[in-house]
Amino acid sequence: MYCVDLNSDLGESFGAYTIGCDELVLPLVTSANVACGFHASDPVVMKKTVEMAAGAGIQVGAHPGYPDLMGFGRRNMAVTPDEAKAYVLYQLGAMSAFCRSAGLPMQHVKPHGALYNMAGKDYALSKGICEAIREFDPGLIVLALSGGELLRCARDMGLRAASEVFADRAYEEDGSLVNRRKEGAMITDEDLAIERVIRMIKERKVTAVTGKDIPIQADSICVHGDGPKALAFVRRIREAVKAEGIELRPLKDIV
Amino acid sequence: MYCVDLNSDLGESFGAYTIGCDELVLPLVTSANVACGFHASDPVVMKKTVEMAAGAGIQVGAHPGYPDLMGFGRRNMAVTPDEAKAYVLYQLGAMSAFCRSAGLPMQHVKPHGALYNMAGKDYALSKGICEAIREFDPGLIVLALSGGELLRCARDMGLRAASEVFADRAYEEDGSLVNRRKEGAMITDEDLAIERVIRMIKERKVTAVTGKDIPIQADSICVHGDGPKALAFVRRIREAVKAEGIELRPLKDIV
Amino acid sequence: MYCVDLNSDLGESFGAYTIGCDELVLPLVTSANVACGFHASDPVVMKKTVEMAAGAGIQVGAHPGYPDLMGFGRRNMAVTPDEAKAYVLYQLGAMSAFCRSAGLPMQHVKPHGALYNMAGKDYALSKGICEAIREFDPGLIVLALSGGELLRCARDMGLRAASEVFADRAYEEDGSLVNRRKEGAMITDEDLAIERVIRMIKERKVTAVTGKDIPIQADSICVHGDGPKALAFVRRIREAVKAEGIELRPLKDIV
Amino acid sequence: MYCVDLNSDLGESFGAYTIGCDELVLPLVTSANVACGFHASDPVVMKKTVEMAAGAGIQVGAHPGYPDLMGFGRRNMAVTPDEAKAYVLYQLGAMSAFCRSAGLPMQHVKPHGALYNMAGKDYALSKGICEAIREFDPGLIVLALSGGELLRCARDMGLRAASEVFADRAYEEDGSLVNRRKEGAMITDEDLAIERVIRMIKERKVTAVTGKDIPIQADSICVHGDGPKALAFVRRIREAVKAEGIELRPLKDIV
Repeated sequence: MYCVDLNSDLGESFGAYTIGCDELVLPLVTSANVACGFHASDPVVMKKTVEMAAGAGIQVGAHPGYPDLMGFGRRNMAVTPDEAKAYVLYQLGAMSAFCRSAGLPMQHVKPHGALYNMAGKDYALSKGICEAIREFDPGLIVLALSGGELLRCARDMGLRAASEVFADRAYEEDGSLVNRRKEGAMITDEDLAIERVIRMIKERKVTAVTGKDIPIQADSICVHGDGPKALAFVRRIREAVKAEGIELRPLKDIV
Repeated sequence: MYCVDLNSDLGESFGAYTIGCDELVLPLVTSANVACGFHASDPVVMKKTVEMAAGAGIQVGAHPGYPDLMGFGRRNMAVTPDEAKAYVLYQLGAMSAFCRSAGLPMQHVKPHGALYNMAGKDYALSKGICEAIREFDPGLIVLALSGGELLRCARDMGLRAASEVFADRAYEEDGSLVNRRKEGAMITDEDLAIERVIRMIKERKVTAVTGKDIPIQADSICVHGDGPKALAFVRRIREAVKAEGIELRPLKDIV
Repeated sequence: MYCVDLNSDLGESFGAYTIGCDELVLPLVTSANVACGFHASDPVVMKKTVEMAAGAGIQVGAHPGYPDLMGFGRRNMAVTPDEAKAYVLYQLGAMSAFCRSAGLPMQHVKPHGALYNMAGKDYALSKGICEAIREFDPGLIVLALSGGELLRCARDMGLRAASEVFADRAYEEDGSLVNRRKEGAMITDEDLAIERVIRMIKERKVTAVTGKDIPIQADSICVHGDGPKALAFVRRIREAVKAEGIELRPLKDIV
Repeated sequence: MYCVDLNSDLGESFGAYTIGCDELVLPLVTSANVACGFHASDPVVMKKTVEMAAGAGIQVGAHPGYPDLMGFGRRNMAVTPDEAKAYVLYQLGAMSAFCRSAGLPMQHVKPHGALYNMAGKDYALSKGICEAIREFDPGLIVLALSGGELLRCARDMGLRAASEVFADRAYEEDGSLVNRRKEGAMITDEDLAIERVIRMIKERKVTAVTGKDIPIQADSICVHGDGPKALAFVRRIREAVKAEGIELRPLKDIV
């Protein structure tokens, strides 16, 4: 029996600013990553988002990022592992308060943007993040890039770790994502994207940009809900996955 | 047997900016109110402060404030009760992460500055704050102005509530603090200040600015650690209180 | 010959967050109020907005607000006149840099949200704001609520002052706006709204909510561009005004 | 006739937070770099600092930094040249408002911390900064690391450029500063530091960490005022320089 989780970033609105169509994407995923007020979101948005997820019976996780609202947490920052640890502790705690208020246990943690990318390549930074998670709640699942340093570190530290894959991204032979600036980085053919996802789940393999097949672990697929086209693609993935007999399950049932 | 708590605001530094002499004041108090990153403090400072308190065996509480770092949370802001509830939930959660990391249970909550003052006069705002506390952890003690609306609301909602008094402030007949802008608002005579504190604890009375004696409940005395003079006064209070056979105990042993 | 200015708030996006349809509303107005990074906007947005206005030949002004991005500058804050003065100086200067870069002189200043509303009722706060304007550039036009304290203060200080009116708001007999929470505060009938605006311009009169006619000065009409309905209404106002032989001119040609 | 400028970072306080002894260091320097509210400072602090400089007859410059108050602008951030241009325009403008209010022309621009260091090694980033300066005021002097990319870029773009040296830092053979983490990075012997400074000014040479003499241009010496020891060293430099017949002059009289 195959199963996979669908995760999406939610709760990224801030004050008078709205981003995303949370109401529409939420029922389509099995795990929601909720921003924690550093790169996006604010306490009012977090409360509303977690309550919406609780109402829909969707699992939530913390989506901590760099303290860079102006850059939406997408810009690399030279933050030390100790600073990252404190930032993640802070954001996990903040997020947990809304979970507690909504009566919904927190399922996982997925770092956002530049923090996710930098941790994927930096074991020391990953260690700061994982220490925060372990000290806050050793039962939390770490959702991280398949084949990256954060995933490796989480496993080394005995944390539950889930491997995330991307339907619309090409992979290098070493399992890392092809840099967005390189040609061929994005899989724009939706049929191909879905075919690749199915194969990642069933065969644990994907064809790298070089043409060579590489092993990959697909515990969760990252999907986006920012617009009608993105939502339609999520619906297609859901149908295709189900048609293949793959069950959609939240992370906690997978790792 | 009489007993009283001494509380002080700590962990108010931010990034490269230092405020207060936390190392010196911490051993002199029985409860530390730690800022939570809105009006002051940052995750690195919070972590260090809670660890320092844990090391010294001092009880800690969250000291949530308005999102106004530039004004140190001292400026009134027209925040709705719902916004206040979300802000307090967020800050309680953030603070709890450092407590969990340090293995130290969070003892209490004391709102900061303008949030403390506005809540003291506004039952609806107090309700937002107390709902956050109850939903986060109904065992937390609410430390609030003696005779104020926040204290009343906390009691109405069945929360543990502690009444805070000030050694250096004059009181109106209705138990509220004399506005700082009015003459006689501050008790500058240290001997008198200490005498008043002792009487508040033992007789549950204080002489209002009008000359009339009024009832008051002194569960905790607020003290400051910003400078040698303030520290010396804290030491004097400690000695005077002990000399009167009053025991210094953290809030959790009092209410 | 009658003439009037149409002003609208622009450049309110922030980082990854977009607000408004600036490209669509810009060609419909004669003066654009550009947010300055405190309650909304950021340097990249300001640069782009001013360049867009320069390209379209539309006059720009600074739209300074309270340092409350989370509340979009709409929440009252107890800021002193001296603080307000410094905040306005800072924002005027920041705004002027983008005007200089785009080769477009800054035409006016219109405070935003809670700062606008509080200044309209507080002469001392208005004085702080007007001192900032006078010290920065005494040639700037102050755009303020008709009949309010900010307008009065600007005139007292010898600044050029323009009186702003609202097509969709009811007025009290004293010329102030009817509080939004009161019934009848909004003029929802578009035909009536346009009729009232025409009369304000031509007869300098408006019917207060009590039914009594009061004098009013309409140098500029505030319009909104947040959505198709708002844009359609701006177009209707433009047509109606022109049909009445009233010329649309930027503030600098009016006061 | 030899002459040199002494520059120091001032106006770095923020809200209730104080950094530095601005009143004490200001009379000892000839140029003050004033923080602009991104990495440090706020409008009230900027106003006070510029007024203090104006009163003391000291030249001021803008000290723009990254939008990272929590990291004091000392952490590298992956900001694009276009973003850096907008950030510098914004901060130059904000700073200029206080200069205008105080009747003091702005003399120079010196980027702060990580922005200074990154620009010193990155010509494209330097170009963004220099474009902001040229578009804002082509008469401003760019104060930058001797031998660095920012200085080179400023000269390439026809801007007035001043070369900054450090009394307490060792140099590599290529003229760059020895990384602080390397041994020997700091010149801790005050006599040696002063001797080196004199030689830089008079002979335009300094001994690199390798022992080899390299050419260097010393238009301005960076000094610090954060504490009694730092202030005493500034006084020693002043005396030593004067004793050598070197005149202390602000940047505008030097480049």
